Amino acid sequence: MKKGKQSVFFQKDIFINDAASYVGKRESEGNLRDYFQNVLKDDLMKEKSYELAETKMQKMTVEKLLEVSGKTVNDFDCIMGGDLQNQIFATSFCAREFDIPFFGLYGACSTFGEGLCAGGLFIESGNFKKIIVVTSSHFSSAERNYRFPLELGNQRTPLSQWTVTASGAVTLSDEKYKDFAPKITAITVGKVVDFGVTDANNMGAAMAPAAADTLKTHFSDLSRSPDYYDAIFTGDLGIFGHELCTHLLSNDGITMPKTFSDCGKIIFSEKQKVFMGGSGAGCSSAVFASYLFELLRKNEIKKLLLVPTGALLNKDSPLQKQSIPGIAHAVSIEV
Amino acid sequence: MKKGKQSVFFQKDIFINDAASYVGKRESEGNLRDYFQNVLKDDLMKEKSYELAETKMQKMTVEKLLEVSGKTVNDFDCIMGGDLQNQIFATSFCAREFDIPFFGLYGACSTFGEGLCAGGLFIESGNFKKIIVVTSSHFSSAERNYRFPLELGNQRTPLSQWTVTASGAVTLSDEKYKDFAPKITAITVGKVVDFGVTDANNMGAAMAPAAADTLKTHFSDLSRSPDYYDAIFTGDLGIFGHELCTHLLSNDGITMPKTFSDCGKIIFSEKQKVFMGGSGAGCSSAVFASYLFELLRKNEIKKLLLVPTGALLNKDSPLQKQSIPGIAHAVSIEV
Repeated sequence: MKKGKQSVFFQKDIFINDAASYVGKRESEGNLRDYFQNVLKDDLMKEKSYELAETKMQKMTVEKLLEVSGKTVNDFDCIMGGDLQNQIFATSFCAREFDIPFFGLYGACSTFGEGLCAGGLFIESGNFKKIIVVTSSHFSSAERNYRFPLELGNQRTPLSQWTVTASGAVTLSDEKYKDFAPKITAITVGKVVDFGVTDANNMGAAMAPAAADTLKTHFSDLSRSPDYYDAIFTGDLGIFGHELCTHLLSNDGITMPKTFSDCGKIIFSEKQKVFMGGSGAGCSSAVFASYLFELLRKNEIKKLLLVPTGALLNKDSPLQKQSIPGIAHAVSIEV
Repeated sequence: MKKGKQSVFFQKDIFINDAASYVGKRESEGNLRDYFQNVLKDDLMKEKSYELAETKMQKMTVEKLLEVSGKTVNDFDCIMGGDLQNQIFATSFCAREFDIPFFGLYGACSTFGEGLCAGGLFIESGNFKKIIVVTSSHFSSAERNYRFPLELGNQRTPLSQWTVTASGAVTLSDEKYKDFAPKITAITVGKVVDFGVTDANNMGAAMAPAAADTLKTHFSDLSRSPDYYDAIFTGDLGIFGHELCTHLLSNDGITMPKTFSDCGKIIFSEKQKVFMGGSGAGCSSAVFASYLFELLRKNEIKKLLLVPTGALLNKDSPLQKQSIPGIAHAVSIEV
């Protein structure tokens, strides 16, 4: 049932029975070290390029997801997802390994949210019963695509974030086949929002207005206050972007509770010197599939609002003097 | 209702009330010259880059679509689509201009088919009532992204195709608000298929196996023969790819009728010397939104199977010795 301009209350139960993730070594040494069960030994994994390594990581994540689900890929109606590489190379090449229909998505680091929204709508249509949603990012493939070759050894700017090497995946299903399976109960699909930020090393500022816009719309569309949720996590605004988002919402009269946090902000520890925190299409998916899914399982939180955030630039758009538009999708996940 | 492994019969009516397209000068001088109503004067349109020009063309197409629909953008639940630029720059920046939810898709030149499939499922869910689907491609932005700078003046290879400068858009709706509005009655969502083709100048061969796979599955899932349709159009296999697809189907015992054609094959005339024909994410959408929509309107065809085809490479994947996977989605459109 559509609510307001951008939101949907699902009439059917959309269960998340399974979740799986893989992360890189650095990610496994951060704040969430106790939650990441599957860690890559190195970031090339015997592949000849970082791009192929990311593809392999995403494939391993889907295979792990199938393993924990106890199902085969043919039990699923489709696989959908995306990544940050040009023409979502990692996801297209990962999907090639699985003999089921494929929907390629691109919403930058918000892609996991886009997948949960689209997947939920697909299941609500009654035509699809089971769906795999997967996203990934890889520090080394992203760095040389969006910024500079790693070999240059460029100094990082103080407001920069570290693209995580990580992949996260979940299954969506109209049936509960596990003892524990939280539900996607509502979504707010984001608009493209652009406040004119032009610094490609300050993604948090570029995405914060989109996150604030989607959060504000979510609360308004569903007549909910932020206190409805036990936890609200944006995707990868990082420390500065998260503060900015809180400030923008405050200006609109919305006081965010202490339970408001950000996957990118918490994934690394301060010691790791990654400045504003983590980012990447694998950030919100891997943090959800490990840490947040576990908090839900342990009943430490029962109502989660996950808001993956994306910056819709490419390597050329800042050079062509374009500002960086953002987008964010809110997904209400409840036990 | 899911049919077979990859297909859906829609239970609701999914109407295409409106269609609009813009094409470049060269495209307007081809075989379909009488059908393209909106033609760009030049391929830069006073923008400073081809990428920005493509964005502008896509925006003009959506504006034209809204004009013919007699509706405002706020009457639509979301806009969805994609293009061939890195990180679907044109579509993200186009969506920035419209204040409604956005789903970014990437399926290369199959994106229009992906959008019709996803949009149909969204409407079938009952949550969304009206959706805009748009795709585009631009010869000059594609050429310098995927192949060489135009300034090099490279000779084109005999099996190459010409990326069309074109954008096509349609509205999907659960209600018929125009006198003429064909319906999407069924879809077959494609899998990623890779036969090991490595020549980035022979996209037709890379995509033909995916098109054949989707067509075969479509006929099997829905228990239909090719003769069910008055016309079957693949997206942009071009002359060689279309022949190859026909051959592959023939090997599987499926004889394609003379009504089997390809948008890329017919868009240019032989005189225009574009070798195997047109290609691009705007090819199937612009040809559908003008020529095929008009054939349906005139009742010259009543049952159309549109099968947009995509090659899932990026500029680096052939250099990294990867073959080119293809994908194709079949959309059954009936008056």
